[in-house]
Amino acid sequence: MPLDLTASSVDLTRQLCDIESVSGNETLLADEIERALAPLSHLEVIRDGDTIVARTGLGRDRRVVIAGHIDTVPLNGNLPTRFETIETDAPAQAPGEYLWGRGTVDMKAGVAVQLKLAAELVEPAIDVTWMWYDHEEVSAELNGLGRLARHRPALFAGDFAILGEPTNSIVEGGCNGNMRIEVRTFGLRSHSARAWIGDNAIHKAAPILDTLVGYTPREVEVEGLVYREGLNAVGISGGIAGNIIPDECMVHINYRFAPDRSAAEALEHLRELFGEYDITVVDEAEGARPGLDAPLAQEFLAAVGGEARPKYGWTDVARFSALGMPAVNYGPGDPLKAHADDERVPLAQIRDCEAGLRAWLTAARRN
Amino acid sequence: MPLDLTASSVDLTRQLCDIESVSGNETLLADEIERALAPLSHLEVIRDGDTIVARTGLGRDRRVVIAGHIDTVPLNGNLPTRFETIETDAPAQAPGEYLWGRGTVDMKAGVAVQLKLAAELVEPAIDVTWMWYDHEEVSAELNGLGRLARHRPALFAGDFAILGEPTNSIVEGGCNGNMRIEVRTFGLRSHSARAWIGDNAIHKAAPILDTLVGYTPREVEVEGLVYREGLNAVGISGGIAGNIIPDECMVHINYRFAPDRSAAEALEHLRELFGEYDITVVDEAEGARPGLDAPLAQEFLAAVGGEARPKYGWTDVARFSALGMPAVNYGPGDPLKAHADDERVPLAQIRDCEAGLRAWLTAARRN
Repeated sequence: MPLDLTASSVDLTRQLCDIESVSGNETLLADEIERALAPLSHLEVIRDGDTIVARTGLGRDRRVVIAGHIDTVPLNGNLPTRFETIETDAPAQAPGEYLWGRGTVDMKAGVAVQLKLAAELVEPAIDVTWMWYDHEEVSAELNGLGRLARHRPALFAGDFAILGEPTNSIVEGGCNGNMRIEVRTFGLRSHSARAWIGDNAIHKAAPILDTLVGYTPREVEVEGLVYREGLNAVGISGGIAGNIIPDECMVHINYRFAPDRSAAEALEHLRELFGEYDITVVDEAEGARPGLDAPLAQEFLAAVGGEARPKYGWTDVARFSALGMPAVNYGPGDPLKAHADDERVPLAQIRDCEAGLRAWLTAARRN
Repeated sequence: MPLDLTASSVDLTRQLCDIESVSGNETLLADEIERALAPLSHLEVIRDGDTIVARTGLGRDRRVVIAGHIDTVPLNGNLPTRFETIETDAPAQAPGEYLWGRGTVDMKAGVAVQLKLAAELVEPAIDVTWMWYDHEEVSAELNGLGRLARHRPALFAGDFAILGEPTNSIVEGGCNGNMRIEVRTFGLRSHSARAWIGDNAIHKAAPILDTLVGYTPREVEVEGLVYREGLNAVGISGGIAGNIIPDECMVHINYRFAPDRSAAEALEHLRELFGEYDITVVDEAEGARPGLDAPLAQEFLAAVGGEARPKYGWTDVARFSALGMPAVNYGPGDPLKAHADDERVPLAQIRDCEAGLRAWLTAARRN
């Protein structure tokens, strides 16, 4: 059944979720989105792989990019979606009406709101470039938004960007940076019956863990938002066999750093902490300053209402930030439920997000 | 070509090594051994799987069991064997003539000496039960000696046992016990962008490594030999993904304990050290007291010459020890070269071992 963009944003969320689109398998959903948009004469539709771009060309002197990814993490028995009512306070779950299932939070509810408004708002107060992209949940080099920026950089012209990642429909500004390093210790193998001939690399990793345990993460205010950092071992491995003294141990460390630090500064900090060991950088992503002092950001905040919060997780807002465009996260769903087996989005948040975005796109100062 | 048991023990070592017999693939070599022994009327030959037993029945009032395993660890480009001359002192390698290749040290040189003497000594001073067994280099439940003890316990009657494991042709008494445990810490998963919601199980493993680093292994005198213990992490693992706070970490610990402790006492000691964590015993093997005060052991030592040393590694002598039989290790080759890619045995040690064993088996007090 083709997508019905005139349905409610709740119903449209359900339609989108029930078309499975685990990363790498987005083609069917991209086809459906493209087909649903094709008849809409107020939008220019462009496709790159499984990324669909739709833009208005009203000649407004300001343009916003509003984006969302259409892929999800793998299923775990959580499709098709279903509606649920939570009657009493479950742990960390407010009572109310929910849509349960993979993608409801991360982030097809956000995409549904965007698609509905893209179809309906024929003459928004600001020109809009809508982007729905593939491969967000996998390695960065596959990311559809990154690919689009390489293939069609001109599409990224704009004054402000909104990413529909789940934020409980509250504006979250910027994002922490993300760095992962592997810290290695080396020793000398020997038979464990004569351990004194060898040199135990796992034992040598003890001070690395001690440093992590004793570390106090910073809380840093950047442009009015307080970003909380994190420094954690996310993996550890070592050992060859039960009777061999290991000659290598690796601690995989993840540093989430506030956007007052560049990735280079973050690495410098890690070298201060672990400089005596062998360090390999396996992933690095700059953070994004919130950019909430930009005029469009201020108008957006005023229209949506409420205060902005910092975004702790890294999101693609950093890609816009790197292009010099202020960017915020704004979408339905609790980010703590993203990727969870009991992923579920409150229906009220879908409606709130739609209302907020609609208010801004229709009421913003026309030019 | 059939085995030639009249060849020198050096040549016989080469013949045995060049019949590849990695654990699980011993049948061809066992066939050849059985065929070579079959014509010898002074020996009763018994086969159990790929284990061959040959015994004299001279009516002596004392009997010794002399055993060696015929399997090897996997090859690593180190067959066929070759002779090598080391001219000058390489690191940890004395000058001299060597036979290089898989199994030369662990332990076909020992088996060659045993086979040659089994064939040649028609009337040894002591009755001998020779055992050549399969599956020593793999998990204990496959061990051919253990299987033989279950199938044919009567074959284990005897007053003393000699295992031909490599000892540089020096008598090594008893062996350390061996215990492996997995120590686990548990936490709570969360996205690493919000680490404070989770509880990092890898960080919780820091005190375990600190305990290992700070631990001073015992040196314990048992019946005149000093056993050196060892307590080591031989493995560590934890982590789910680069963006998830891990909820479990496992440290794999190997305790080599002196034979004054039972395995139960060794575990009690580990519980004292790591009792606040979840402990799983994954392997345990009792040590063996040297038993050098037994009269046959004393005669053996006197005939072979030199002093006895403690055996640090666990060997199958513990199986004999558990049956109440004093048992020692005595075989050519440096145990540090066992399993090594440059496994090589000094030819002089093969000849020394043959001479020592021959002297004892022919000169021991007849009864």
